[in-house]
Amino acid sequence: MDKLNLNQHISRQFNRELEDVRNRVLAMGGLVERQIGDAVRSLVENDITLAEEVIEADRQINDMEKEIDEECNLILARRQPAASDLRLVLSIVKTITDLERIGDEAERIARLAIRLAESDRPSKAYREVEHLGRHVRSMVREALDGFARLAPEVALKVAREDEVVDAEYDAIMRQNITYMMEDPRNVRRTLDMSFVARSLERIGDHAKNIGEYIIYLVEGKDLRHAPIEEMEKEIGESAPREQG
Amino acid sequence: MDKLNLNQHISRQFNRELEDVRNRVLAMGGLVERQIGDAVRSLVENDITLAEEVIEADRQINDMEKEIDEECNLILARRQPAASDLRLVLSIVKTITDLERIGDEAERIARLAIRLAESDRPSKAYREVEHLGRHVRSMVREALDGFARLAPEVALKVAREDEVVDAEYDAIMRQNITYMMEDPRNVRRTLDMSFVARSLERIGDHAKNIGEYIIYLVEGKDLRHAPIEEMEKEIGESAPREQG
Repeated sequence: MDKLNLNQHISRQFNRELEDVRNRVLAMGGLVERQIGDAVRSLVENDITLAEEVIEADRQINDMEKEIDEECNLILARRQPAASDLRLVLSIVKTITDLERIGDEAERIARLAIRLAESDRPSKAYREVEHLGRHVRSMVREALDGFARLAPEVALKVAREDEVVDAEYDAIMRQNITYMMEDPRNVRRTLDMSFVARSLERIGDHAKNIGEYIIYLVEGKDLRHAPIEEMEKEIGESAPREQG
Repeated sequence: MDKLNLNQHISRQFNRELEDVRNRVLAMGGLVERQIGDAVRSLVENDITLAEEVIEADRQINDMEKEIDEECNLILARRQPAASDLRLVLSIVKTITDLERIGDEAERIARLAIRLAESDRPSKAYREVEHLGRHVRSMVREALDGFARLAPEVALKVAREDEVVDAEYDAIMRQNITYMMEDPRNVRRTLDMSFVARSLERIGDHAKNIGEYIIYLVEGKDLRHAPIEEMEKEIGESAPREQG
C-alpha cells in the first residue's frame, strides 16, 4: 500500500487544493465542537438565547458540508486523484457526513434545552449530562486532531473512550428510570433528559467513525465494524489504555 | 449540467462495472428493508429467535457496505469517471452509508425486542409501532425504487412522507408519556418502546437522505437540508400530495 504523502504533487496548485479542503474540514470540525459545548451549556445554564444560537448555527454547518462536498467532487473530476490522494478525498467526504450529523445532535440537544427550560432542575441529573457532554466533545476534538496529524493511533484511543461513554450512558439511563418510577411528575422532563443523553452517546459513535476514517486514510485499511482488538493488531500500536 | 446516461461508455467493461455496483446497492437495500420488517415483527410477535437473526444479519449488511465502498474506490481509481458517472459513484458511496445506518437501527430494535420479550404487552402500543414500522419500510423501498429507476420525483414523495412519520412519532411519544405517568410499572417498558419509535423515526430520515442523493445523481443538484418547497421548485414536478 502506498504511503501517504501530501507534499509530492507535480502540480503545486493541486497541493494547495488538497490543503485547502483539509483546512476547511478542520474549520467545520471546530464549529461542530463548539456547538456540542454550547448546546450542553444552554441546557445546564438554562440559557434559551444560547440554545437558539446553536439552532441557528446548524445551518452554517450544513452549508459547510455542502461546500466541502462540492469541492471534493471538483477535485475528483478535475484531478482524478489516485492512491493516497484519492483516499484523502474519500475520507473527507465521509468525515464531513459524520460532522454534519454531530451538528444535528447538538441542534436536537438545544431544542430539548428550550423545552426543558421551564422544568424543575434536579442538579445531579444535569451534572451527569454535563460530564458526558464534556467527554464526547473531547472525543470529537481528539478525532479531528488525529485527522490533522494523520495519526491513526488516535482511532484506537477514541474507540476505547466510546466504550466508556456507552457505560456512562447506560448508568444515566438506569438513573433516569428510577427518577421516573419515583414520581410521575418527573416523567416528561426525564424523558427529555434521556434523549439528551442519547444524542451525546451518538456523538461518541460519530467520533469513533471519524477515527476509523483516519486509519483508512493513513493505512489504507477499512476497519469499520471491527472489534477494538483487531484495530489494536492492525495499527500495531499499544497506546496506553486511558479512561475518560 | 450533463444528462445522466449510463449506456454511452466507450468501454463495455466500465458499463458492466457500474451496472454491477448499482445492483449490489439494490441487493443491500433489499436486505436492509427485510431487516426493518423482521425487527418490528420480532418485537410485535415476541419472537426472540427472529430478533437474534436480525442481529446476526447486521454483520452481513456491514460487510456489503465495505465491499461496495471498496468497489467504488476501485472504479474511481481505475476509471477516473467524470460528470454523471462520477455522480453515480459518489451517490452510491453516500447511499450505502445511510443503508448501513438503517441496518444499525433495525439491530437496535431487535435488541430492544429481546429485552421487551419479558414485559407485559399492551396491544395498542405495539399496533402503533407496527404501523410506523410499515410506513418507514415502505419509504426505504420507495427511495431504493427511485434510485433504481433514476426517478428524482421519488425524493419529493419520500420527504413528504417523512413529515407524516415525524407527526406519527410525536403522537406515539405523547401517548408514551401518559402511560408512564399513569403507572410507574410502565416506565421501563415504555421507555424501551420510545427508543423503538425513535429508531423508526430515524429510519425515515435516512430514507429521505437517499431520496436527496437521487436528485443529486440525476439532476446534479445538492438539495440536502433544503425545505420541501425548494425541492418542489427544483424538480419542477407537482406530484400529488400523498399521506402515508
